[in-house]
Amino acid sequence: MKKLLIVTVLLTGSIVHLFAAQGNLPGKVDLMWVAWLGSVSALSFAFILTVYIMKKDPGNERVREISSHILEGANAYLGQQYKIVGIFFGVMFILFLFLAFTLKLISVFVPFAFLTGGFFSALSGFLGMFVATRANSRTAWASKTSLNAGLRVAFSSGTVMGMVVVGLGILDIAIWWKILTLFQLPVEKIPPVMITFGMGASSMALFARLGGGIFTKAADVGADLVGKIEAGIPEDDPRNPAAIADNVGDNVGDVAGMGADLYESYVGSIIATMALGSVASLKLEGIVALQLIQIPLLIAAVGIICSILGTFFVRTREEASQKELLRALRIGIYCTTVLIGVVSLFLIVSILGSRMIGLWGSVVTGLIAGNIIGFVTEYFTSDNYRPTRELAEESLTGPATVIIGGLSLGMGSTLIPVITVVITTLAAFFLSGGFQHPGLGLYGIGLSAVGMLSTLGITLATDAYGPVADNAGGIAEMAKLEPEVRKRTDALDALGNTTAATGKGFAIGSAALTALALLAEYANKIIEALDHLISMGKEPFSIEHFDIRILEIAKTTAGKIQSIHLNIDLLDPRILVGLFLGSVLPFVFASLSMKAVGRAAGAMVQEVRRQFRETPGILEGTEKGDYARCVAISTKGAQREMILPSLLAIVAPLIVGILLGPFTVIAMLAGAVGSGFVLAIMMANSGGAWDNAKKLIEGGSYGGKGSDSHKASIVGDTVGDPFKDTSGPSINILIKLMSMVSIVFIPVILVLNNLFLQWVL
Amino acid sequence: MKKLLIVTVLLTGSIVHLFAAQGNLPGKVDLMWVAWLGSVSALSFAFILTVYIMKKDPGNERVREISSHILEGANAYLGQQYKIVGIFFGVMFILFLFLAFTLKLISVFVPFAFLTGGFFSALSGFLGMFVATRANSRTAWASKTSLNAGLRVAFSSGTVMGMVVVGLGILDIAIWWKILTLFQLPVEKIPPVMITFGMGASSMALFARLGGGIFTKAADVGADLVGKIEAGIPEDDPRNPAAIADNVGDNVGDVAGMGADLYESYVGSIIATMALGSVASLKLEGIVALQLIQIPLLIAAVGIICSILGTFFVRTREEASQKELLRALRIGIYCTTVLIGVVSLFLIVSILGSRMIGLWGSVVTGLIAGNIIGFVTEYFTSDNYRPTRELAEESLTGPATVIIGGLSLGMGSTLIPVITVVITTLAAFFLSGGFQHPGLGLYGIGLSAVGMLSTLGITLATDAYGPVADNAGGIAEMAKLEPEVRKRTDALDALGNTTAATGKGFAIGSAALTALALLAEYANKIIEALDHLISMGKEPFSIEHFDIRILEIAKTTAGKIQSIHLNIDLLDPRILVGLFLGSVLPFVFASLSMKAVGRAAGAMVQEVRRQFRETPGILEGTEKGDYARCVAISTKGAQREMILPSLLAIVAPLIVGILLGPFTVIAMLAGAVGSGFVLAIMMANSGGAWDNAKKLIEGGSYGGKGSDSHKASIVGDTVGDPFKDTSGPSINILIKLMSMVSIVFIPVILVLNNLFLQWVL
Repeated sequence: MKKLLIVTVLLTGSIVHLFAAQGNLPGKVDLMWVAWLGSVSALSFAFILTVYIMKKDPGNERVREISSHILEGANAYLGQQYKIVGIFFGVMFILFLFLAFTLKLISVFVPFAFLTGGFFSALSGFLGMFVATRANSRTAWASKTSLNAGLRVAFSSGTVMGMVVVGLGILDIAIWWKILTLFQLPVEKIPPVMITFGMGASSMALFARLGGGIFTKAADVGADLVGKIEAGIPEDDPRNPAAIADNVGDNVGDVAGMGADLYESYVGSIIATMALGSVASLKLEGIVALQLIQIPLLIAAVGIICSILGTFFVRTREEASQKELLRALRIGIYCTTVLIGVVSLFLIVSILGSRMIGLWGSVVTGLIAGNIIGFVTEYFTSDNYRPTRELAEESLTGPATVIIGGLSLGMGSTLIPVITVVITTLAAFFLSGGFQHPGLGLYGIGLSAVGMLSTLGITLATDAYGPVADNAGGIAEMAKLEPEVRKRTDALDALGNTTAATGKGFAIGSAALTALALLAEYANKIIEALDHLISMGKEPFSIEHFDIRILEIAKTTAGKIQSIHLNIDLLDPRILVGLFLGSVLPFVFASLSMKAVGRAAGAMVQEVRRQFRETPGILEGTEKGDYARCVAISTKGAQREMILPSLLAIVAPLIVGILLGPFTVIAMLAGAVGSGFVLAIMMANSGGAWDNAKKLIEGGSYGGKGSDSHKASIVGDTVGDPFKDTSGPSINILIKLMSMVSIVFIPVILVLNNLFLQWVL
Repeated sequence: MKKLLIVTVLLTGSIVHLFAAQGNLPGKVDLMWVAWLGSVSALSFAFILTVYIMKKDPGNERVREISSHILEGANAYLGQQYKIVGIFFGVMFILFLFLAFTLKLISVFVPFAFLTGGFFSALSGFLGMFVATRANSRTAWASKTSLNAGLRVAFSSGTVMGMVVVGLGILDIAIWWKILTLFQLPVEKIPPVMITFGMGASSMALFARLGGGIFTKAADVGADLVGKIEAGIPEDDPRNPAAIADNVGDNVGDVAGMGADLYESYVGSIIATMALGSVASLKLEGIVALQLIQIPLLIAAVGIICSILGTFFVRTREEASQKELLRALRIGIYCTTVLIGVVSLFLIVSILGSRMIGLWGSVVTGLIAGNIIGFVTEYFTSDNYRPTRELAEESLTGPATVIIGGLSLGMGSTLIPVITVVITTLAAFFLSGGFQHPGLGLYGIGLSAVGMLSTLGITLATDAYGPVADNAGGIAEMAKLEPEVRKRTDALDALGNTTAATGKGFAIGSAALTALALLAEYANKIIEALDHLISMGKEPFSIEHFDIRILEIAKTTAGKIQSIHLNIDLLDPRILVGLFLGSVLPFVFASLSMKAVGRAAGAMVQEVRRQFRETPGILEGTEKGDYARCVAISTKGAQREMILPSLLAIVAPLIVGILLGPFTVIAMLAGAVGSGFVLAIMMANSGGAWDNAKKLIEGGSYGGKGSDSHKASIVGDTVGDPFKDTSGPSINILIKLMSMVSIVFIPVILVLNNLFLQWVL
């Protein structure tokens, strides 16, 4: 603890120093050192906590053995996943090399940036999982002492994950900043390159979320269907050959998948805003591009330091009740939020002067909106509130009413988050002066997303500790520790469900705002790419074939392009059909990913049945099931099934762009954000509510365990599994990845669409 | 039959005469007589068929008694519904009177047009139901003879419904045309008034679909849950007090509700296109407004006559198999489609000359698209194809996998219909010359919707006979007719499910196209209303408060408005948030309507349980259940529950318009069309597939009746009930009603939004 205190003092000192130095900032000072500071602080803090966790007692031999089975399974899964993903990244890398060096359509940095984005995203997930797979047994063992002791280990593990994600996120940006400035690239050209590593991160995140989500749900459903229902053995029973796979799933899906996912969200929001800053600065007098470009990064870095401080506010008495623990976590988050609010005010005013104080307003709207969406998510999914309690009651009339009730709950729960995002968007745009300078307003929308995610260091901690507690419970069960331990880990798990709801709110809300920012950036890039192509005088490229109704091109008498102005008219049929195409994509994606879970689960069911049939000793407890084979089957299924839905995100913008042009793509992206945002909230909340309704019944309400209403609630929970852990969270990534693919491939789309139109007309 | 042949000859003669006369059309000839001819033909044909049905034997005393119970229940329901709807229409009428006469913001015809739209929509449903409630017993009795005999009665009843809908639709338009021309209104001013009666029709349709949908599903679920599952008596058992309510539901929901719904679709597509025609004609040389305005109406009228002819192609052998019957129905539809295609070519070329032949292309794309969407719907929901067969197989692993599979199926089934509508939109726009004259292109999109619905007379016949066959089956069961009869009515019912799928495809596809047309009309109306307000010099109204970025206003030096140009930029945040708001509305609507079904069903469950408990003789068959009370409870529940979701459609555009302005409303409408279209298809197809998967299992596959897989499939079917019969079809109406409300209330929204902005700024 002493060490931690020293770190705190050092960090606080740095912040004070920062503001002392910026008091009379000349306006052009490079503040990248703040980003480095933030990144290094996060990674050091993560390292310290990892050491702290590793020092804890990993438990008796049985506990260590089970934990090592889980670890092996998780590593086997990741190894296989990285192989498949490696092929994808390899192919894309070569494609980018070709586009950059042979066709000279994109920047030469793009192929490499793409790789690093994928690498860091994967690393975030891997490191988070590295710690989680070690913390699970230690949490179980610590829970022998007290609830609080268990919480400390699990929460530390979650914090490591949070810190790794934000630390690596800033690090990647900072490294590229360094490289690109070494190559003498002007600052305005830096953000576009970074979008490419955003695309790398998003691709990796989609694979991780989908693959992990399919794995964990296939294992879960497989274990439940054959073990619990057919063979009648309890959950996490060591006799179930799929039990280890189930626990592996928590790690590869809910930890590694979530890590990659939030790395993508975090980095995506920052770089999208940086890109908008670079465009906005062009039209503002007295503002240097460097300032606007760096601010999102600085807010994020400051957010890291405040999050670290915030974790110290999470204090609990030794015999704290569950309610007190929840309060403690909340205090940590709220303190961080307030700290960031205060510090970012100083930051923005000292860098840009008080006339730009409206930008701070944008940051604050994001901070507030994140908390509102988080609360709404909790309201609709926690059994402390009416919706989930009523859903549990509906299980009394059977599975059909539970399903109708849950779907209806999820659909209804989308209204307030949407209204919140609407108000945030308008407020961020208005406050940052968007009605005078539209570019600045769009930048403000981006800043609200950055503000929302600036607390990620601590909110992710509260989110990521849940799966660790869940695993600890599984280990306690399989290692036959005292029932008291399982009770405590269950309490931790329930607490995790509540705090995870808040975390999900941030992920979903920021996804919508980031997607809006990317949309704006896409429009900017079209103009830039057109300029570039025209200046290159590409032979097959003919500006005449572009749509003059959408594009206003001013020509000088000499025939040279003077200025290009986009006019994306909502009522143009090519725009309207884009909206239609965009609206349908999240549904198709959800359909594909749910089917994937079904197929992978089917393979698992076959395998568990086979083991029970061929080795009767397993059920009698005299022989061990083949855990590794179950893991291998789920791994294989997940890898095979994740490919088709992932390709959709990459192929759809390309096909639509080539056939219908880049303007229909904009509308498609807007449509996908609209329907995807709503569908993602619905799936997450329906799933969460079904899960907690089942837990409420298992706690003894409405008939309790084993009753018909319990069985009905299990049906709801099973349907909810792919909703909340596979399809729902992946949709967030989908809408951003599609935007990034569109941005990165603009020159290609422009040229091919041009060729296509020449061929048709 | 002789009479029918005479009618045919007469009609064919009229068409020949029409083209002979139009060969050298002067271009300004008023062709409204064709509309009158179409309308009168349809209504006469409906009358003849009604007489034919009434002459059939209504069966023995028991059959007649049950039929009269159903009739009474249905009438009681409609009486109650018209009372509630009457209050709504009364309030709106007074509001419109106030707006028209006191504030002079809208045309004086609006209040009356609104009333007639509601009246005719209700009348369509009522007349369809009048015949259906008489045809049900006669179908049951005729099925004693043969499958074919049963089909003839049921199909005649469906044809009456189809003819009444199209006949009254054209009649309403023709009457208003007459009135408005008597009042010397210029033809260009006629379509806007008609939009108001479209709003009346849509309001009525929404109430009828929702109320009827809630009634029928509450009765269905209530009867199943207590009767089938708790008491263990078969479906349609006379001992079940909810059995009559269940059969009443088929009539008020699937007949009266569907009639009002399709009346709204039909009339909506025609008048939206007429309105676009009036705007397009302003910018076209050599084209008289009258021509473009009347063409949609003429195509519809010609479609009626072709549909009547088409019904004569539905010929069957006396011992026809189910497959042959299906083929016979198909031949009828295809013949009608081809006939309309040919006749409309002559129509357009003779009226507008061959240079406008592209408009015919738009009509044809609509005709083709309707058939494609219909086929896709059938592919995904019929047990003849893989998707539903696989869904049935998934019931082997329990209800959870059935639900996941069905949702996934529904979501996946949305892709091709969306792509079809996208291609239709682009093709209709392109063919009609939209790239030269955007107004004409939008008109072309409208024409494709009219083309799609021009076969409604016969497609609705194949759709509407299903519930009659369903009812006939119920009556056969309750009246204890020979099992052979029930088998035959079941075969008819199954056939109806297949053809109904095609009908649904037309309804959904045309809804999307009509909504696009209404969107374009909305934009036109904004300009017109602004012009009107400015010319009135309304004191509180200040053009300065409008958004100059969205509105380009050219002023002359004298300060008078010269021209207004809309520029609805997709990337403006106020437009993007509109998309968000629009995307969420169909979800909220679906949530509310599904909850409504749940609550109404709960009340029914209580009532049936009470009757079984308090009167034990019911289950023993010695006493009769209180059928009327069940009907009354379902009626009360439906009326109470339909109000909130319906208000959403009316209130949402007003609130958004007043707070965020009319431009955000456009985006909201576009967003609602996008997500609503997809959600409606998904809900309809998931529901249809679950229904048919259950039927497949009941036919003996995957374990057959009474097996666990059968139980699992019943869960799917129960979830699917509100999907396909309440929420899904209502969403189609919702998106059109919102557009019409927006259009009608534009002047009000403009003034109030202006006041609001003045107050805020």
